[in-house]
Amino acid sequence: MAIITLTTDFGTKDHFVAVLKGALLTEVPTTTIVDISHSISPFNIHECAYLLKNSYKAFPKGSIHIIGIDAEWSPENEHIVVLVDGHYFISANNGVISLVTSEKPPEKIMAINLPNGEISSFPTQDIFVPVAAHLARGGQPEVVCTPFDELKELRDFKPRIENNGNTIIGNVIYIDNYGNVVTNIERSTFDAYRNGRTFEITARRQRIKAIQKSYNGIVDYNKEKNQRKGPGDLLALFNAAGYLELAIYKSDLNTVGGVSTLIGLQYRDIITINFDA
Amino acid sequence: MAIITLTTDFGTKDHFVAVLKGALLTEVPTTTIVDISHSISPFNIHECAYLLKNSYKAFPKGSIHIIGIDAEWSPENEHIVVLVDGHYFISANNGVISLVTSEKPPEKIMAINLPNGEISSFPTQDIFVPVAAHLARGGQPEVVCTPFDELKELRDFKPRIENNGNTIIGNVIYIDNYGNVVTNIERSTFDAYRNGRTFEITARRQRIKAIQKSYNGIVDYNKEKNQRKGPGDLLALFNAAGYLELAIYKSDLNTVGGVSTLIGLQYRDIITINFDA
Amino acid sequence: MAIITLTTDFGTKDHFVAVLKGALLTEVPTTTIVDISHSISPFNIHECAYLLKNSYKAFPKGSIHIIGIDAEWSPENEHIVVLVDGHYFISANNGVISLVTSEKPPEKIMAINLPNGEISSFPTQDIFVPVAAHLARGGQPEVVCTPFDELKELRDFKPRIENNGNTIIGNVIYIDNYGNVVTNIERSTFDAYRNGRTFEITARRQRIKAIQKSYNGIVDYNKEKNQRKGPGDLLALFNAAGYLELAIYKSDLNTVGGVSTLIGLQYRDIITINFDA
Repeated sequence: MAIITLTTDFGTKDHFVAVLKGALLTEVPTTTIVDISHSISPFNIHECAYLLKNSYKAFPKGSIHIIGIDAEWSPENEHIVVLVDGHYFISANNGVISLVTSEKPPEKIMAINLPNGEISSFPTQDIFVPVAAHLARGGQPEVVCTPFDELKELRDFKPRIENNGNTIIGNVIYIDNYGNVVTNIERSTFDAYRNGRTFEITARRQRIKAIQKSYNGIVDYNKEKNQRKGPGDLLALFNAAGYLELAIYKSDLNTVGGVSTLIGLQYRDIITINFDA
Repeated sequence: MAIITLTTDFGTKDHFVAVLKGALLTEVPTTTIVDISHSISPFNIHECAYLLKNSYKAFPKGSIHIIGIDAEWSPENEHIVVLVDGHYFISANNGVISLVTSEKPPEKIMAINLPNGEISSFPTQDIFVPVAAHLARGGQPEVVCTPFDELKELRDFKPRIENNGNTIIGNVIYIDNYGNVVTNIERSTFDAYRNGRTFEITARRQRIKAIQKSYNGIVDYNKEKNQRKGPGDLLALFNAAGYLELAIYKSDLNTVGGVSTLIGLQYRDIITINFDA
Repeated sequence: MAIITLTTDFGTKDHFVAVLKGALLTEVPTTTIVDISHSISPFNIHECAYLLKNSYKAFPKGSIHIIGIDAEWSPENEHIVVLVDGHYFISANNGVISLVTSEKPPEKIMAINLPNGEISSFPTQDIFVPVAAHLARGGQPEVVCTPFDELKELRDFKPRIENNGNTIIGNVIYIDNYGNVVTNIERSTFDAYRNGRTFEITARRQRIKAIQKSYNGIVDYNKEKNQRKGPGDLLALFNAAGYLELAIYKSDLNTVGGVSTLIGLQYRDIITINFDA
């Protein structure tokens, strides 16, 4: 039986998430429901797109992903079903799956066409749940959808390449639980322009000349403990999702602080990579 | 196999919720456990009652709902099992299910009668879990309960009707993840007194003369984008649970703010509806 | 099929937890996954050890516990599998399971030995998930592990006994969702030194001479309500996990406050028990 995942900005206090789960279990009792996140900042499509791209592939093909963010239907925010990489995504047409589709071309893009689907104040329950249940029971999307070809994309997720390929100018696109800041510079972009050159990453007044393979890559375990770099030190690495990330080793926003607080890097701030001549 | 839901004020950091789940899965390995909420404000029976009423119906009949809030047994806070609308509720007798029973008359009200049930500091595990497991295995409540007829009710959940039916005076009973404020004025009450009249909703210095069908009901999509009402604008609607709610379109408490912060509406504050003559 | 639990400091906003669940469900579709906590303070091994000890026993023997905190491999932080009390724990060798093993001697201690296991920045996914899947399918740990005998322990979890057994000096080791403070003084230690004597617990300027059996143990239900002790009053009890806890009856950190805020008790602060001669 298909797995159904939930990604919303509903928070975890209110009854909204439980209502989705109850409705899904009523319709498809044997389904497995998995939370991706319910703590996305309200209406933050970029955060949601980042989380979706980095999590969906961990699930088996055939999984159904319900995305409950900015989901009210309008003439400019249609309800859609997109099949990509063997996964179904059910969402509003607000760009939230464009990081997925920019990596893999979608196999199907359809608009949901249920009676009275336009006038709900809780479309994630009223529209997305019955569509997900239909798909989970093995139903074809064409039964509840019509063809659609205006899939919205998110702008400004790509870094700029300047100075004849010697400079990559990226932005902070996500700040994680540890206060580590994730940029929109992917490993593939970095590799494409590096050509074996040395480089310098600049973020505010910080400069970094190495990229670690793991967070403790800055620690030299051959040295005595009091001689080592360690907790509190800044580093760069490509995170497990493949994006350049600036991190503080063993950071904790509530105690020693993280990159976001210690260096003052916030959402959308600029990070630059300069390759040496 | 029955679904068991959990509604508590335990929070999600501590081990309390995991202990309940482990104990339930040990007793009834094939049960499906669903969290309704664990982030209810500690000992806030009203919040809990609101969440329960709005979520339980999404689950199939036969579901078993464990409510772990203010659950310590005392001569004034008995442990009870209530069967209503085909659902079992297991809780202390603190009024937490009275929004459910005020809508549907209970089929059975019983007091739990387990040996030494009075002296636990964690009765949700020690008492409610074995009772839920018993019911999930198809057991009858009479085996572990005795008759009971003193079900407590919550006061002050109903709005007052004044001025010969021309005024409804309600209160804020819940503030959701978006900072939207929910009142105790239900659609049925509003409809019963409106009689087709125009009206004005007053909340602090704000006045609203329309009730939307959805949050984006205030947006006129025929206008150019910069001419439209939109994010940051106040509106009223009956939410998916049927209660009058004041909302800010696309609000985010951490950025633009929500009704609770922008208008200064807090829990228990007054909202008034005046119908025109 | 084995239950797999997850205990991490990943938080619930990021995609990290969902990635673990997706990967586990891909490898072992019929497994039941249960969250113990994802809100442990980043890199706080002591908090994690406390939550693990108090929750694992609620799960059936044969359960597999993945612990994703401070999990990066280093020559001083090996990846290990420990079998204790019929439960498998998969973690880094950072002391996180030492509260479990100090109570029950481990049956097996092994080091994980997967190809390239040393260089991941997300070992909870890359290493712990495949090992857990292997065990969940009934595989033996010896297939993916080698013998190991350097299990790390946590210091400073035991109270000091002074003054010829007349004084127990403990510390705050955990602060729960209600602001109640948990000490490292276990009931067994208290009982061993008490010998039927009266006693006085001192925490800052507060003195307590009784230990309750439940949080409402301080309430005398024979008195009129306005004559009773109740919400806001300080008490001591051994909590459901067996540790001495100072609590405020019906506390709420956001309103009336809890012990941590009202009395100013924080993590690691001292609590003393003096037995009378």
